[in-house]
Amino acid sequence: MEETRLSMYQSYKEMLTSYIKSKSEHALYSAQQFSKEMMEKDMSPEEMVSLHLSVFKEIVDELPEEVIASFDLLLEVMIGYGLAHQEHLSLRDRQR
Amino acid sequence: MEETRLSMYQSYKEMLTSYIKSKSEHALYSAQQFSKEMMEKDMSPEEMVSLHLSVFKEIVDELPEEVIASFDLLLEVMIGYGLAHQEHLSLRDRQR
Repeated sequence: MEETRLSMYQSYKEMLTSYIKSKSEHALYSAQQFSKEMMEKDMSPEEMVSLHLSVFKEIVDELPEEVIASFDLLLEVMIGYGLAHQEHLSLRDRQR
Repeated sequence: MEETRLSMYQSYKEMLTSYIKSKSEHALYSAQQFSKEMMEKDMSPEEMVSLHLSVFKEIVDELPEEVIASFDLLLEVMIGYGLAHQEHLSLRDRQR
């Protein structure tokens, strides 16, 4: 699982770096593929937002403090979505 | 539904403004309650991230361009989660 996270981190980092630089349609298309991959790997929406923040922090030096604070709050809300996602997965697995 | 969105927007705006200003534990606690309310109203994780961005744009004058670009990409990924959430809701409703 750790390897998966690392590889998703790397892919997303390339995508976000490229998108911030060029705003290309291609990066948006890659994001759609990435989204499917995240779901195939059962990663929750909370993990996605958390991954986004980690990558964004690494790419941009000294993010404004209010940006980081805003993500703290968003992540707190997303925890609920993460739990709901877990319930959904276990329900799905029980039905298989 | 429009009224619901407006009231969620207002609540989140108060919460985010307060958290950015004071980083209080209380705002984080409110975020947990807010999360439950979002889910009771069947709002998807994509709608949550989109709500966050709208509120954040309103609170902070002239957000750095890279912050807005980064959200474009995050939202593109979240669309997949929004669709999955819709499927989950219709599955749940069919089972009732």
